[in-house]
Amino acid sequence: MKLVRFGAAGSEKPGLVDGNGVVRDLGAVVADIGGDALTPAGLDALRGLDVEALPVAPAGVRFGACVAKPGHFIAVGLNYADHAEESGMAIPAEPVLFSKAPNCIVGPDDDIIQPKGSTKLDWEVELGIVIGTRARHVSEADAARHIAGFCLSNDVSERAFQLQQGGQWIKGKSCETFGPLGPFLVTPDEIADVQNLAMWLDVNGEPRQRGNTKTMIFNVNFLVSYLSRFMVLDVGDVIITGTPPGVGLGMKPPVYLKPGDVVTLGIEGLGQQRQKVVAFPG
Amino acid sequence: MKLVRFGAAGSEKPGLVDGNGVVRDLGAVVADIGGDALTPAGLDALRGLDVEALPVAPAGVRFGACVAKPGHFIAVGLNYADHAEESGMAIPAEPVLFSKAPNCIVGPDDDIIQPKGSTKLDWEVELGIVIGTRARHVSEADAARHIAGFCLSNDVSERAFQLQQGGQWIKGKSCETFGPLGPFLVTPDEIADVQNLAMWLDVNGEPRQRGNTKTMIFNVNFLVSYLSRFMVLDVGDVIITGTPPGVGLGMKPPVYLKPGDVVTLGIEGLGQQRQKVVAFPG
Repeated sequence: MKLVRFGAAGSEKPGLVDGNGVVRDLGAVVADIGGDALTPAGLDALRGLDVEALPVAPAGVRFGACVAKPGHFIAVGLNYADHAEESGMAIPAEPVLFSKAPNCIVGPDDDIIQPKGSTKLDWEVELGIVIGTRARHVSEADAARHIAGFCLSNDVSERAFQLQQGGQWIKGKSCETFGPLGPFLVTPDEIADVQNLAMWLDVNGEPRQRGNTKTMIFNVNFLVSYLSRFMVLDVGDVIITGTPPGVGLGMKPPVYLKPGDVVTLGIEGLGQQRQKVVAFPG
Repeated sequence: MKLVRFGAAGSEKPGLVDGNGVVRDLGAVVADIGGDALTPAGLDALRGLDVEALPVAPAGVRFGACVAKPGHFIAVGLNYADHAEESGMAIPAEPVLFSKAPNCIVGPDDDIIQPKGSTKLDWEVELGIVIGTRARHVSEADAARHIAGFCLSNDVSERAFQLQQGGQWIKGKSCETFGPLGPFLVTPDEIADVQNLAMWLDVNGEPRQRGNTKTMIFNVNFLVSYLSRFMVLDVGDVIITGTPPGVGLGMKPPVYLKPGDVVTLGIEGLGQQRQKVVAFPG
């Protein structure tokens, strides 16, 4: 299944994409794409629906983030060897974990606001994992059972805030609109091999990132298992898993986003995003 | 006002402490201590109640965390000059920000579970700020208007996970039960000077931390203002503001917690906590 949230920001409705690519309204079936709807039982109930009988969503409707209000928005740093190299950082022996403020999550095609004082606004196409079953010290072999699905994300980053203002990365990862997520939450049964998905990102139509999830240092199941040793993963939590080479910070000289730029990105089977960069209002 | 949440873990009810120290049940008045109840209008409505007419909570009832499900649990590192020194770290030029998984929040007297593989389990008494009005680029002068109240917290930490396993501090700050919060959410009108509160922490009755919020490097209003430049602060978000000297990591030689240890802590006007350390179950 491809699950979505559609409608105006802040009042999205749950939906699913049928076999013809038409968005169907799940508003009468589940409260939202989150919580119980993401559990194995919740997903099974959705699989049992007569999709053709569901109302059709308005054509051209806005997509919201594909998960409602994650309790935690966790990120993995430097998880592609080539990206660690372009960032001038060592390949990590263990996953580097950080987090983003959950309230920075926005829809896949919403504007990215350049923060006040930002000079180094950057992009990162990433594969996101959505948790469907609480995970606490799960083994790598059991990890897949805890995953509700996967999604596309842009781990928008401000490199000066992240690296030059003291301390931890969260400072450059959490600004308003820094977490485009979606359009689709794709259940694992629709993905032949999550460790072999092409991924790409362009800025103003120029190729910037080209990669594949097969070059991850730590794979999806390992990450879920590893994370579950350091924190409990709850239903609806989102883990984004690192970015392949080609970020602005890695260009020689570095190139950063400015108002008016358009970022487009995608991962095979998970859909595409398009964000316009806008100046901080007022 | 002193607001509380009381009852069994996971089904706490909202309450307030009356002038005689008796917990009154707010279950018929607000859904929980969170969201709308924390806004200026919500707090004003509670102030207008006839407290004597509210039902009395059962004597000796368990306290839960004093805020329901914060959307973000943010922490400030090295915010007391003496603690930075004992940790062998430089005094920061700007606040060091990190976060803790919101689902590590527990009641003030709940057990601390020593994580699997933990060898360096440590304590940190801290002042917590609870946001009452959304904050986005607020000035230091305006910051106080965005604060619903203050609370006591123990920023439980695993130093090997935090400092020796690669990357960012979140790894040693987010384990299950690492966020005791409460017992009271105390509104600012009850506190004469938030930058002059004595704070203390004992382990097995032996003094470990003795400090005062007056030795913070970055004060409460500055922190709210500073944070609001890097992320939007939403109602119910919790910011813990750093710890004074006396953590286990700073002792010579370092001393860490083990199952059976009892941690007691308090901040003037904000109540006390008591946690027993237990082994990871099973």
